[in-house]
Amino acid sequence: MVEIAADPTHPRYQSLLMRHRLEEAEKKGMLAGSALIAHGRGEAYDYLLGEQSIPSAKAATKQALAHLLGAHHPVISLNGNAVALAGKELLHLADQLGCPVEINIFYRTPERMEALIGHLTQLKVEHSFDVEILGAEPDARIPGLEGPRANCVKRGIFDSDVLLVPLEDGDRCEALMAMGKTVLVIDLNPLSRTAQMASVTMVDELSRVVGDMNRILLSKERPKVSEEYLNESSLQDALNHIKDFLTKTD
Amino acid sequence: MVEIAADPTHPRYQSLLMRHRLEEAEKKGMLAGSALIAHGRGEAYDYLLGEQSIPSAKAATKQALAHLLGAHHPVISLNGNAVALAGKELLHLADQLGCPVEINIFYRTPERMEALIGHLTQLKVEHSFDVEILGAEPDARIPGLEGPRANCVKRGIFDSDVLLVPLEDGDRCEALMAMGKTVLVIDLNPLSRTAQMASVTMVDELSRVVGDMNRILLSKERPKVSEEYLNESSLQDALNHIKDFLTKTD
Repeated sequence: MVEIAADPTHPRYQSLLMRHRLEEAEKKGMLAGSALIAHGRGEAYDYLLGEQSIPSAKAATKQALAHLLGAHHPVISLNGNAVALAGKELLHLADQLGCPVEINIFYRTPERMEALIGHLTQLKVEHSFDVEILGAEPDARIPGLEGPRANCVKRGIFDSDVLLVPLEDGDRCEALMAMGKTVLVIDLNPLSRTAQMASVTMVDELSRVVGDMNRILLSKERPKVSEEYLNESSLQDALNHIKDFLTKTD
Repeated sequence: MVEIAADPTHPRYQSLLMRHRLEEAEKKGMLAGSALIAHGRGEAYDYLLGEQSIPSAKAATKQALAHLLGAHHPVISLNGNAVALAGKELLHLADQLGCPVEINIFYRTPERMEALIGHLTQLKVEHSFDVEILGAEPDARIPGLEGPRANCVKRGIFDSDVLLVPLEDGDRCEALMAMGKTVLVIDLNPLSRTAQMASVTMVDELSRVVGDMNRILLSKERPKVSEEYLNESSLQDALNHIKDFLTKTD
């Protein structure tokens, strides 16, 4: 059992809270076997970034949000870890954007899909979010991918023009980009294939990003897509931050 | 389920094999809730080191082995991840060194202790290792630690002069150092408290280190403790390697 500090100002509070949420999700059968290992990798990169949203990440978040606001058919794609770590916050975001969410998991089993849909539906009812939850009945396939991981919903991910895919794997990010979509990813490893390929990469921790997006929308701020935004520069800035961290703590 | 590549020359073979071993250990109840997350953090640092034993890590491994060979009462301390990732190899090392192993876990429950002792005993019998497995009946406490995590065996960890503790947590590393022991740790994060405090830190992946130690001993090489060895320099070299990796892949 992860011990959660009672005090939210405790320096490890957020990190322990995320672990606790993953443990709860694990018990509900929402996660794949590799989910906790993937989270651990994220923890290491977040540590190297100083467990903070660095300015370039905040700029990427605004750019991503601008793309979502300007989209014809935005969709938020959710996997097990995303639902576990920030399910409520992601539904709140979808509610504010007026877009559907679609559960799209790499290791697809009926049991996991049921657990994830059940959990999201419960959150939706509890908080009166007006959000369509897609994914239970896939009727299309992402071209270029094999097996169940290609499954998606025609009027969801398949027809979307702008897609927020937190914690995506490299192959699928590549396939979605090849479909011509604007793909917005949240990935703490600036060197990952996903981070390198996406339209906009937020090198930041999922719950912080979604929290920021929700706060921006609640404040009625409506960011515009910046033509100057360069994803490469954003990734380079994250790498520089990590190098500075390694130098300062020498 | 983790898919293991059938071909050991596959670039991801070692990494997938380690994940597979953790999954098997998880099924047997050998791991704490935080074990997979901790492994994921290690994966991230190993990735940043290029998934290789860098020269300074190899030098640290020789230095650690020299300390074990020169000890009056060496002990290998084992936790859940160590047993899962390299249980057989660690018993082989203890057999070659003629020293006991002691199971010493942070989240101690009777069920986990039983699962770990059962697994190690099975490996010992299968491979005819002549190794005493301690830990089932702790009769001493590590001073300065609270709760069950302080429990240890008098004629094991408590009385040891040189202790190999792969994957140790910071508090316990500090408490063991305060007992005046030579503490040899394997930790992929060169910035961790454990890495910073230990007598010798191998910034390397556990199964690679133990494999190297076994090969050195089988080759009849007997490294001597070097008076010039500086743990700080070894840690600095690992940090420099990571910084170079981040620069080269820019």
